[in-house]
Order: sequence, then C-alpha cells, then structure tokens
Amino acid sequence: MRLMIDRLIEGIQNTGNPTCVGLDTQLGHLPEGFAGKVDSFADAAAAIVKYNKALVDALCGVVPSVKVQIAYYEMYGVPGMQAFVDTCAYAKEKGLVVIADAKRNDIGATSGAYASAFLGETPLGDKALSAFPADFVTVNAYLGSDGILPFLKASQVRGGGIFALVKTSNPSGVELQDLMIGDRRVYEVMGDLVSKWGEDCIGEHGYSSVGAVVGATYPEQGAALRLRLPHTFFLVPGYGAQGATGKDLRGCFDKNGMGAVVNASRSILTAWKKQPGVDFAQAAYNEAIRMRDDIMEGM
Amino acid sequence: MRLMIDRLIEGIQNTGNPTCVGLDTQLGHLPEGFAGKVDSFADAAAAIVKYNKALVDALCGVVPSVKVQIAYYEMYGVPGMQAFVDTCAYAKEKGLVVIADAKRNDIGATSGAYASAFLGETPLGDKALSAFPADFVTVNAYLGSDGILPFLKASQVRGGGIFALVKTSNPSGVELQDLMIGDRRVYEVMGDLVSKWGEDCIGEHGYSSVGAVVGATYPEQGAALRLRLPHTFFLVPGYGAQGATGKDLRGCFDKNGMGAVVNASRSILTAWKKQPGVDFAQAAYNEAIRMRDDIMEGM
Repeated sequence: MRLMIDRLIEGIQNTGNPTCVGLDTQLGHLPEGFAGKVDSFADAAAAIVKYNKALVDALCGVVPSVKVQIAYYEMYGVPGMQAFVDTCAYAKEKGLVVIADAKRNDIGATSGAYASAFLGETPLGDKALSAFPADFVTVNAYLGSDGILPFLKASQVRGGGIFALVKTSNPSGVELQDLMIGDRRVYEVMGDLVSKWGEDCIGEHGYSSVGAVVGATYPEQGAALRLRLPHTFFLVPGYGAQGATGKDLRGCFDKNGMGAVVNASRSILTAWKKQPGVDFAQAAYNEAIRMRDDIMEGM
Repeated sequence: MRLMIDRLIEGIQNTGNPTCVGLDTQLGHLPEGFAGKVDSFADAAAAIVKYNKALVDALCGVVPSVKVQIAYYEMYGVPGMQAFVDTCAYAKEKGLVVIADAKRNDIGATSGAYASAFLGETPLGDKALSAFPADFVTVNAYLGSDGILPFLKASQVRGGGIFALVKTSNPSGVELQDLMIGDRRVYEVMGDLVSKWGEDCIGEHGYSSVGAVVGATYPEQGAALRLRLPHTFFLVPGYGAQGATGKDLRGCFDKNGMGAVVNASRSILTAWKKQPGVDFAQAAYNEAIRMRDDIMEGM
C-alpha cells in the first residue's frame, strides 16, 4: 500500500515547498463582513468552511499539505465537527495531504477507537465507515506503546501516519520535556520511542509513518533530534506567529532538504491584515510564497 | 462559585459510593436486538444514547458520577458527537457529575479552545454557547503549564475541573512514566506539577479542581501518590475489567475514605452478560452495588 508519508514527501518535492498551512481558522481571522451575522454554531461553522475552501483553492498548487487543528472546530460543537469533516474532505479533494492536529491519546481499545475515527474505519454491521478521515493524526504518547500501536494498526487501512509530540514549541514544554532521565532528556526518550515505533513502517524515501512534532522555537534541539532520529519525519510548528524564522529551521532538515514539514497557521490565515487592499486568499497565497522562500533560503 | 469538585465529593458522601460509571458504550455492549439494524453512524448513535439513558436512569440514585469516554463517540463521526452531547446532558439532568474523558491537550489559545468546548463557553457575537458541556474533563499535561492554565481559566465559567494524567493504568505507561528524573519518577514530577496547578482552586473539602488520573492497577504507587498529593483528588481507572479489586484501591483514599473516585466501564456496561435472565439496566445496577460494596469493604 502507498504510504501517506511517501505522498507527503512527494508533495513537498513537487511543490518545492516543505510546509503545511494550519487551518486553525477562527472567526476573528475572517475579514469584516465575510461571515455575515454569526448567531449559532452552525453559522460559525458555515463561515469557517467557506473561508477554508477559499484558502485551499488559493494554496493547493503551492503547498503540499494542511494541518487542521480540531480544537477550533470542537469549540463550535457538533456543527463545528461537521466543518472539520468538510474542511478535510475538501483539502483532500484538492490533492493536499491532510494532517488532523488532534493530539489524541488513550490506551488499548480506546486508543483504537480514536485511531478508527481518524485513520481507519468504524465497523457497522456488514460495512465500515470513516468518521473523521485524515492522512495523518497527531498523538500524545505519554501513555506509551499501548496508546500508539492501535494507531499503527488502523493506519494500515489507508496507509496513514501519525506525528507524536516529542519537543513542543511552547515555553513551558520544558517543565517536563527537558528534564534529565539518566543521560537523556525526556523529549529524547520520547523521540527514541517514536523512532522504535516507526521501525516497521519505513517508506520508499527512508522515513517512517511515525513522525515527531518538534517545535521550531528550539533550533538546536531540533538539529540534534534530526541527527538522532534519521528515519523520523518532523512536523514543525512555531514558525511565524510563534517567532521562529527560516534560518531557525535549517537543522530540522536532512542533507537533502527533506525530513520536515513546517507549519504556519495564524501568519497565513490572517495575512490579509498585513496586506491592505489585497483579497484574503491572495494575501494567504503571497504569505505562503514568502514563507516557502524564507525556508528554502535558510537551507 | 460552587466548585464541581465539591459537588463530586458531596455526591460521593450522599450515595456512600466513591465510584463513577464509565459510559464507554460500544455496540458490542448492547444486548442482541437492542439496537435494531445499525446501518449508519446515526443508527449507532441513537442506539448508544438509548442504552446510556436506560443506564443513567438505573444508576442515578446509587452512583454520583459518570465518565463519558469521547473516543467511543468520535468513532461514530458527527452523529456520535451529538450522542456524546445528549449523553452528558441527560446524566447532568439526572443529577450526576459528568466527567468528559477526552484527554485533550495543546498549548495557549488552542488549549483555550478545548477548554471553552468542555468547561467554558465559546463566544458568538454578543452571546456565548457551550459546545460539549461537562463538569470535568481529563487532560494530558505533557506540554506543561501553557496547556493547563487555559483550562483553569475556562473552569471559572461553571466551576468545573480537570483530571490530568499522572500514573496511567496500562502496562506500557511505565515506558515513560516510571523513569527516574533525579530522585523522582516522571509520574511523580507530573503529580507535583498537578498539585501546584491546583493550589489556587482548593474547594471546601480540601481538594482542588485539578485532579489526577492514577491507575488502580498500581496500588503501591497510588498509595504513595495519595500521601504526596494531599489536595489532589484522584480519578482511578482500572477497576474490574482491567484487573484491580477493592482492596487494591484502599491506598488511593485518604483517612476519611475520601480523595478518589473509582471508575468501572465494561464490567457495568456488560454486566447483563454475566447475569443471565436479568435486564441489562438491572444487571448494571446490581454490578454497581457489588462494586460499591467491594470498594467500601476494602477501606
């Protein structure tokens, strides 16, 4: 079966752009008047889907992937969850690789239920359906292998993959992640587990279906992890609004300029705010190109 | 404002029963013929809500709380999420304290979106609505304070609380959680953070709104954590189907028999399978009483 990690890598090669756009869309990101009167979750959901579709239309030739942060859809309840489904489906239809940023985690059969929801299928009598189909889903591996293996099993349905939190981009990530366990930091222990979980699902390009979230805001640690985990693809948040720039990212890539996909959300979703008179979708496109060039220049 | 941790404790006192029933309802738990033909997510969702309501009706006098595992609702897509809402609403209506077992986690504004969804409200123009209202939500604190503080802020809307994963009940939890950081294990470091986060929201009964998940399958560690974290209430999974018994739990309680709520899911949901000829709701009631007595005998 074709692995999504290979599709992601080829998407990056085809566009020359190792980025994904974070569709963490919130009402405050939309230009005045775009949404009309928003009086219910259904109104909010409709406005967000409309905005997302316009962005996907503008970006699908130049970026290979989107990351859809499910928290911003859950906050709009059941209609928000439908907006998440519709956004993911539209992005896939337009050829983008879809990363569901859900940071799900549990154990055993419960982890299997999440895995079915995002990467696999839910059995229903004599058939099976996909609940929130994505190509990748982010996970939190604090619970260990019991929590992760069900995702690997479900990933066999469509060749999907996961990104497990290793070194997160936020300041207080260090409270636990940077503490020492013997001669390794907690995030290195986690990285080594992630590498092990991926051993049996390495794709054609040398990277496994089990990736790691490695924040751009810690460039030295990112570079060290790149060397430590040669078969682990990185999802790199923290570019743009969180402060990291193109040159901070160099170390996250391998010697071929591969091995990482860099996310930006707010800086693209709200690019129109810094480009007066430019349509929001065009502004997002402009910012995506600027980001691509900034990152490629850093290599 | 009335804190939910106080309501939970008083519910336990009033029923003399420090347990919660896990509504991790799956189609396989339902008696043959209960659901009719299930051909869609909507069919599955309807059957599960019907089952849950019957269980809530049977149990609401004898247990103080339910834990609703959202993974089993997410696997049924958008209709499943509506079933989650309906289940939580019905349980609240019947006076039960509702714990959304969602293990959500992220940073900053994104964590805030999850917090709004479960504990707070989502602003919509000049009003605000609750997406998936619960009294407590479980969280994963691998990302540190940035990920937790937004939940504490949102909890001020209705006085809700959180339970953060500290020492989980599954075998592979030890892969990370039991490693040594200086003279503390990872789960002790996490426990100490949880205790600190709860310092400013301690209720009338001496326990804070920031609880900890502590698995019943590790009785010695549970007892040591009880002494270490005197203001932290424990949500204790692993009783019943996962193998722990009443006497394994003694150490999780304080000297007044308070300080923990013990969850059982499968053993109650499927109690009818071991009580031939007994109606499923009556069988669940019988098993809830047996569990209560087993735990109270262990004290």
